[in-house]
Amino acid sequence: MLVNGESYQSIWYDRDNGKVTVIDQRKLPFNFNTIQLHTIEDVFWSIKEMVVRGAPLIGVTAAYGLYLAIKCNRNVITPDFLTKSANYLKSARPTAVNLEKIIDEIILKLINNISHKNIESIAFNLAQQIELKEIDNCSKIGDFGLSIIDNLYKQNSKRTINILTHCNAGWLASVDWGMALSPIYKAFEKGIKVHVWVDETRPRNQGARLTAWELQKAGVPHTVIPDNTGGHLMQQGMVDMVIVGSDRTTKNGDVANKIGTYLKALAAYDNSIPFYVALPLSSIDFNMVDGVKNIPIEKRDDDEIRIMECMIDNEIKDALIMPKNTNVANYGFDVTPARLISALITEKGVCKANENSISKLFS
Amino acid sequence: MLVNGESYQSIWYDRDNGKVTVIDQRKLPFNFNTIQLHTIEDVFWSIKEMVVRGAPLIGVTAAYGLYLAIKCNRNVITPDFLTKSANYLKSARPTAVNLEKIIDEIILKLINNISHKNIESIAFNLAQQIELKEIDNCSKIGDFGLSIIDNLYKQNSKRTINILTHCNAGWLASVDWGMALSPIYKAFEKGIKVHVWVDETRPRNQGARLTAWELQKAGVPHTVIPDNTGGHLMQQGMVDMVIVGSDRTTKNGDVANKIGTYLKALAAYDNSIPFYVALPLSSIDFNMVDGVKNIPIEKRDDDEIRIMECMIDNEIKDALIMPKNTNVANYGFDVTPARLISALITEKGVCKANENSISKLFS
Repeated sequence: MLVNGESYQSIWYDRDNGKVTVIDQRKLPFNFNTIQLHTIEDVFWSIKEMVVRGAPLIGVTAAYGLYLAIKCNRNVITPDFLTKSANYLKSARPTAVNLEKIIDEIILKLINNISHKNIESIAFNLAQQIELKEIDNCSKIGDFGLSIIDNLYKQNSKRTINILTHCNAGWLASVDWGMALSPIYKAFEKGIKVHVWVDETRPRNQGARLTAWELQKAGVPHTVIPDNTGGHLMQQGMVDMVIVGSDRTTKNGDVANKIGTYLKALAAYDNSIPFYVALPLSSIDFNMVDGVKNIPIEKRDDDEIRIMECMIDNEIKDALIMPKNTNVANYGFDVTPARLISALITEKGVCKANENSISKLFS
Repeated sequence: MLVNGESYQSIWYDRDNGKVTVIDQRKLPFNFNTIQLHTIEDVFWSIKEMVVRGAPLIGVTAAYGLYLAIKCNRNVITPDFLTKSANYLKSARPTAVNLEKIIDEIILKLINNISHKNIESIAFNLAQQIELKEIDNCSKIGDFGLSIIDNLYKQNSKRTINILTHCNAGWLASVDWGMALSPIYKAFEKGIKVHVWVDETRPRNQGARLTAWELQKAGVPHTVIPDNTGGHLMQQGMVDMVIVGSDRTTKNGDVANKIGTYLKALAAYDNSIPFYVALPLSSIDFNMVDGVKNIPIEKRDDDEIRIMECMIDNEIKDALIMPKNTNVANYGFDVTPARLISALITEKGVCKANENSISKLFS
């Protein structure tokens, strides 16, 4: 996607200098920097410190991490070395299911090819395949979502389609295109008039910091709103549809996504506004049925609520926004029951949020 | 209510030194200061700069403002002087309906008594009457609300009653007791185990800044949560009831309150959790029927969203929390339809949120 007129991904391999480069997402939107990753230790650090974040991007970065481990240690590649490297990378974000899955997949293939003289290029190709697969999935999610926006637009092409989104499920969270934002980028490129209501997304403000930054860089009209605002906008007919991402989806279509998603789904339902979830099929967890009962919800650090990163006197600083001894609770996600979801937008097509429709996508 | 073990109101007249004193709410919770108001100009400033805020408190402060105007200008009290003083005070917060109402009421009485030699003490008594009436209303709201909490507690007195509130409808917004918080203080005083989930209330953070401060000073257990969190807590059975205030209530029971209230009402309804609105009857607007269609919603300054008051290096500073050029929208209120409200708690009793039940309270 575009940043200041130049095409970027959130991670890329530069063939000219043989370097893996990522966008440093910690200081966005105040500063835009890129960082080169030279070693597996660099990759571990970038995942742990949230230089990179978002399940698809973490997975791709870890895949390059295994390639860098082999590249830097050509003479010591043993099954033990590979297993240690894998466990090391997994420990950077122990709760990221996707990270574990991708690493296990790659490690199996590397161990099977351990005596191959081209093990380094095998590792590189595996990382590239995963990168391209993620991009392709997001692009397809965008195409399927585009047809929904296009249908709405055709009903009255004179006016702007107002789309509300929560948190960041854009290209910064994946490699390119994004999940929830991919249909919006595709619609904008096609010339459909779109405007995005961007939920600020407290406590980490990924909407105000990342989604707004992405949209601004791509030139897509948007407005940041406090998380409290969406219901009022929907009541007043100022929202045509909602699109959000998903961290985990149960087999019957319940969706765990950033805390606050459920409240927007309730408001959309109450105002007969379609509510879509854009997700790669890999995020569907067939071991879970009832999202509200089964999906474990991460409790995060209290200081994410009390302390906010601000720009003050032209410096980025951490500031207290309430007294340090304030008692707070920081739940990372909530569950939107399938009954409130109009449809799921996946790389294999759009389907109803129920077991029967979801399983058809896999057959 | 208690602050550091001492009893306070948000405004009081000190008989010893003849001074009107208020709590400076601008720097709470970081600093606790009181300010003496000596003149009508001081009162105008305190309302305009939001040293005092909350409809009941603004009304009482203005009433003392008229008294101070007369006290400082004993020899020039004419109908013209009184009218000018009234208009001056009204212009401090032009959209505050309550302010206008109270000033008009007092001015009428003062003009009728303009040649009375004790006009100064008449003005003082009128201000005191309004102060006492506000306190009495809030105390009664507390008593009626207490019986609801008590009933819930009696069902299982072993466990804590978890109450969620949004924004600040506490004693800082009135004179004493508060509206939404009054039943909670009464329950706590009675020994009922209560715990309050305090919505942060972006963008001005009145929950995190004022409600949490009030509860902390009174020793009431509470936890500040991002506005996104309430739905998840309700799904998980961690909320027993919701109590909020109201800025304006239509004659059929629709409630305009701080933006985001509607989202919590939807979540409460979806999880069969009772949702109460605590309000003085003076906030009911009999000219309005359909809240969503009729109640005008104030759009406020964009910088309230982009800039946050923080504590940094032990100083209170304004800091940018998103780039200065971010496009934002700042709606102050939303409307919760009567169908989502379990009951209204007023100074004359608890009633259903519909025209028939409301009108019975007035007869």
